Amino acid sequence: MELAMDRAALEDFLARDFGQVAEDFAVERADATGVTLRLKVAERHLRPGGTVSGPAIFALVDVAIYLAILSRIGPVALAVTTNCAVDFLRKPEAGRDLLAEARLLKLGRRLAVGDVLVFSEGMAEPVARAGLTYSIPPR
Amino acid sequence: MELAMDRAALEDFLARDFGQVAEDFAVERADATGVTLRLKVAERHLRPGGTVSGPAIFALVDVAIYLAILSRIGPVALAVTTNCAVDFLRKPEAGRDLLAEARLLKLGRRLAVGDVLVFSEGMAEPVARAGLTYSIPPR
Amino acid sequence: MELAMDRAALEDFLARDFGQVAEDFAVERADATGVTLRLKVAERHLRPGGTVSGPAIFALVDVAIYLAILSRIGPVALAVTTNCAVDFLRKPEAGRDLLAEARLLKLGRRLAVGDVLVFSEGMAEPVARAGLTYSIPPR
Amino acid sequence: MELAMDRAALEDFLARDFGQVAEDFAVERADATGVTLRLKVAERHLRPGGTVSGPAIFALVDVAIYLAILSRIGPVALAVTTNCAVDFLRKPEAGRDLLAEARLLKLGRRLAVGDVLVFSEGMAEPVARAGLTYSIPPR
Repeated sequence: MELAMDRAALEDFLARDFGQVAEDFAVERADATGVTLRLKVAERHLRPGGTVSGPAIFALVDVAIYLAILSRIGPVALAVTTNCAVDFLRKPEAGRDLLAEARLLKLGRRLAVGDVLVFSEGMAEPVARAGLTYSIPPR
Repeated sequence: MELAMDRAALEDFLARDFGQVAEDFAVERADATGVTLRLKVAERHLRPGGTVSGPAIFALVDVAIYLAILSRIGPVALAVTTNCAVDFLRKPEAGRDLLAEARLLKLGRRLAVGDVLVFSEGMAEPVARAGLTYSIPPR
Repeated sequence: MELAMDRAALEDFLARDFGQVAEDFAVERADATGVTLRLKVAERHLRPGGTVSGPAIFALVDVAIYLAILSRIGPVALAVTTNCAVDFLRKPEAGRDLLAEARLLKLGRRLAVGDVLVFSEGMAEPVARAGLTYSIPPR
Repeated sequence: MELAMDRAALEDFLARDFGQVAEDFAVERADATGVTLRLKVAERHLRPGGTVSGPAIFALVDVAIYLAILSRIGPVALAVTTNCAVDFLRKPEAGRDLLAEARLLKLGRRLAVGDVLVFSEGMAEPVARAGLTYSIPPR
């Protein structure tokens, strides 16, 4: 399978279309299996106690699946999240970036479905799991 | 049923324990039925195109259920979200605050479950629906 | 709003298109707000201990939302469930039917989203809550 | 990691505690990674059109995660499902069994979380994905 957008193309897309938010993320990998997205954890992502906030984890898994879809169909700016279910499993480690491993389970004409495991960098046990559905505009 | 924390007590708790995030929210209602929480939509909550971002909606529903739990059991700072499922139904209206109507469906010794409807202020059709589970520490 | 199918029409549809499964259910209500569907609890729906099984509750909420959609758009046999999230809140009461209160939150051209509260008949506290998404074929 | 119950012990448990339902299933694998459970698809699992019904898929993923938990902690009959979210991705192939690949993502003192991919036997693309949470009684 050929990718419509590789790692560099996804990074360019982020920088161009996501404005300031793009600074939070780095695309570590994009291949036939999916995408790895890094959240460069900073003060603004933390809750009191030093743990990464739920909304920051939500943003990470949402962008990760979005990029996994774009890597296959190209820069379709109008795909929108219709459903996102997150299980929060463990407290993220303080002072470590988060890595989201996203894979596409279905890429249909109208709907794309993927899931994501989120890890504190270097740790074996996931901190969160998410399943997301995107609605894809008619092409 | 008597509330452990009323609207004013919840606002104080937000201001004290949520730091800067508290400025995003206002508690509109807290009664036996649940809590209404306002997201004071500002530039930082928006996506390109003027719509409220997914992470901002996630934060809104998460805090709304958290406050609904606290209104019943008092300021237990250690309750944590274990699961959150959001359906995104419609684009929020530009230039309007969001209102989250949260109700508790179960308040057990270990788990609390609630759901939330989110509206653009003044609109009849919801922009999002969410179900959340919180784990409550032993009391 | 006028209904495309009323209570009697939904019952007829069930009997015609759902075969034996139809005997499990009775449509109690169909109006602009949604649908109430009864699961006529029988031996085959029970788990050891006398509680209604998870799959029986799943079937109940799935059929309830399906009928709520049909009540609005008529007998479109090809609508399919794409996502279903159920929170199991309490053990159903032994020896009581279950009632599912289903409402539609969105009825779009491609997707319909609804949620359901399930009660043991006569009880105030719900035993389950579910959110479902259906994909609707082009009309 | 040593398993508290291996494949044969899980099959015995099913036969003893699940009554007639046990005949629907066969445990294909139980190891440190998780459990593979087969649904022996029969007439009673089908919807008109020959596809496996949603409730049958729900039962499959629910039992698969339950057995994955038991394989680690032994025969704790009181673990109960608190949340189950299923994405239905593709129509199962007619005339083929379903295989559920279940893995545990968290096994805490109070909650266990796992996810499952479901395949029509011999096919590469999953027909469903599910995430489940179980509440575990104090040991």
